[in-house]
Amino acid sequence: MTIYDISKKAGVSTATVSRVLNGSIHVSEATRQKVMAVIDKYGYTPNAFARGLGLNSMKTIGIMCADSSDIYLAKAIYYLEQKLRANCYDSILCCTGYELSGKKSAMNLLITKKVDGIILAGSHFLYQDDRDNQYIVDAAKQVPVMLMNALMDAPNVYSITSDDYSSTYEATKYLLASGISDILYFYNAVSYSGQRKLAGFREAMEESGFPLDSRLIQYYSGSPEDMDAMVEHLTRLHMKGITFHGILASDDLLALAAVKYAKQTGYSVPEDFSVIGYNNSILVKCCDPELTSIDNKSEKICQHLINTLMGVLCGTEMPGKTILAGELIRRGTTR
Amino acid sequence: MTIYDISKKAGVSTATVSRVLNGSIHVSEATRQKVMAVIDKYGYTPNAFARGLGLNSMKTIGIMCADSSDIYLAKAIYYLEQKLRANCYDSILCCTGYELSGKKSAMNLLITKKVDGIILAGSHFLYQDDRDNQYIVDAAKQVPVMLMNALMDAPNVYSITSDDYSSTYEATKYLLASGISDILYFYNAVSYSGQRKLAGFREAMEESGFPLDSRLIQYYSGSPEDMDAMVEHLTRLHMKGITFHGILASDDLLALAAVKYAKQTGYSVPEDFSVIGYNNSILVKCCDPELTSIDNKSEKICQHLINTLMGVLCGTEMPGKTILAGELIRRGTTR
Repeated sequence: MTIYDISKKAGVSTATVSRVLNGSIHVSEATRQKVMAVIDKYGYTPNAFARGLGLNSMKTIGIMCADSSDIYLAKAIYYLEQKLRANCYDSILCCTGYELSGKKSAMNLLITKKVDGIILAGSHFLYQDDRDNQYIVDAAKQVPVMLMNALMDAPNVYSITSDDYSSTYEATKYLLASGISDILYFYNAVSYSGQRKLAGFREAMEESGFPLDSRLIQYYSGSPEDMDAMVEHLTRLHMKGITFHGILASDDLLALAAVKYAKQTGYSVPEDFSVIGYNNSILVKCCDPELTSIDNKSEKICQHLINTLMGVLCGTEMPGKTILAGELIRRGTTR
Repeated sequence: MTIYDISKKAGVSTATVSRVLNGSIHVSEATRQKVMAVIDKYGYTPNAFARGLGLNSMKTIGIMCADSSDIYLAKAIYYLEQKLRANCYDSILCCTGYELSGKKSAMNLLITKKVDGIILAGSHFLYQDDRDNQYIVDAAKQVPVMLMNALMDAPNVYSITSDDYSSTYEATKYLLASGISDILYFYNAVSYSGQRKLAGFREAMEESGFPLDSRLIQYYSGSPEDMDAMVEHLTRLHMKGITFHGILASDDLLALAAVKYAKQTGYSVPEDFSVIGYNNSILVKCCDPELTSIDNKSEKICQHLINTLMGVLCGTEMPGKTILAGELIRRGTTR
């Protein structure tokens, strides 16, 4: 019987169970009795409780990410580690790869190591089929699970995400307002946040009244680091006679490839051709002209996530979902 | 009494002690008796043995790095994790920051977590004062410690590094041969490998017979991601009347800043100005023209490191030091 089971049987939140066990004064006598009745009836697992209460804790948080060499994730992990250390927590990181089996086994490893909480960094951990997300629900019965850039409804799961939908919606509107209507959407991830980004683009295009040409929604399936292949992907479209004078890319590297393509094709950037990237990463400065990009406030997301986690570990009731706005940072690749 | 203590007292390697305890046939009867005599006399710690023998092991390796958001380290960590997984080992990562205290506490954390070995990724873990390296020597009494891009002499410590000295030596010779003698060396790290790189540059310059101008050895101390500050650093030198027509940079981001500086100053790259980077990272393709860079064979280093570690964990005698050659990859920023 875990803290989670007791909260379910007593019909109160896990935070409330924590407060009862913690002897907190912020619990009504009625609630206290309800919780204690469940414990008396079903017994409990002291270790799981101790962990929930921060007793007997190693003060260690597990961080899972699909691929630590992704520039965006690498930065997020850096922020998370820093902010955990500032709260006197150690962190251990598992790189899981993109397969579900790798994610499940990393989750089990971390729970075996008795971490106090688990952070899933990046939106690759969530699947469309709910059954594939059961490993998250199960883990959350043991420790709080924090989702970064994904949204999920489950007890003891907390989601903090950027508003990717609104960000690409606004960026598309911005390109349209600058007089470009043949905008290509260039992306390489069908993750949760990948879908939200695409949806924002579609919505803005549909609202604009311009017919949405499905050939202008391009999925790049090659290696995430092979810029030559990205440029070639765009060049092939051009050869086929597909016309576009703006590209909204789902990450900065794709956007850099877009700028390279435009220059090779003989366009001047930004006079004849506009490009917007995503993540506002270090790559924006590596581009000539410098890259306009959507800042999805990675550090702010990480700060909120750690604040929420620290609250949960102290037994405070925390919001299950937080959605933060992004911001378009205008530089040299847009007019 | 650990496996390390026994090896010292018996005057044999830890691998030999492992083999004796493992019942391996590749041990002479005399050696076996010597080792068993030490064990009989001093007793032993079964857990430490079990770990040394791969019994009772969690099959988990700890990886330490200073900063996971460094592009080069992020990639190395990715390789290490992949190759460990291929050997059925899990890995946990600690980002330590650049302070010694952070490194020590991460080391302790990993040992508490009962990892089978520890990998120090990057050359920031080694200090000039031997006393500051005692934490590595101490950890190696418990588990094998692998150094990536650093060299150290200590029992149960294994070093795998790129030949940074020869790489910058050859790159400098290459610039000199292309007719550039006023070469600026631009660097931002005084780590072990940072020192080797600088030494290679110095040696090649001194051999060339050109007077070595100390103003052409420039240490950039700003944020490792602030490209504008890097460009400004170079522009200030130009303003002071210091002349240079080639830059050898200790990493690719500094090299990108060098290309940006050259263009802003009115030089054509590579006609009037040459630039060579280091690491052959994803950034080489983000440069226009594409960046000539030294490939220090990060993946090969990681593969050697894991092979060595796996050998050590099986009780095989492995080389304490491996030095691998780098390679200059010529692209558009050199003639």
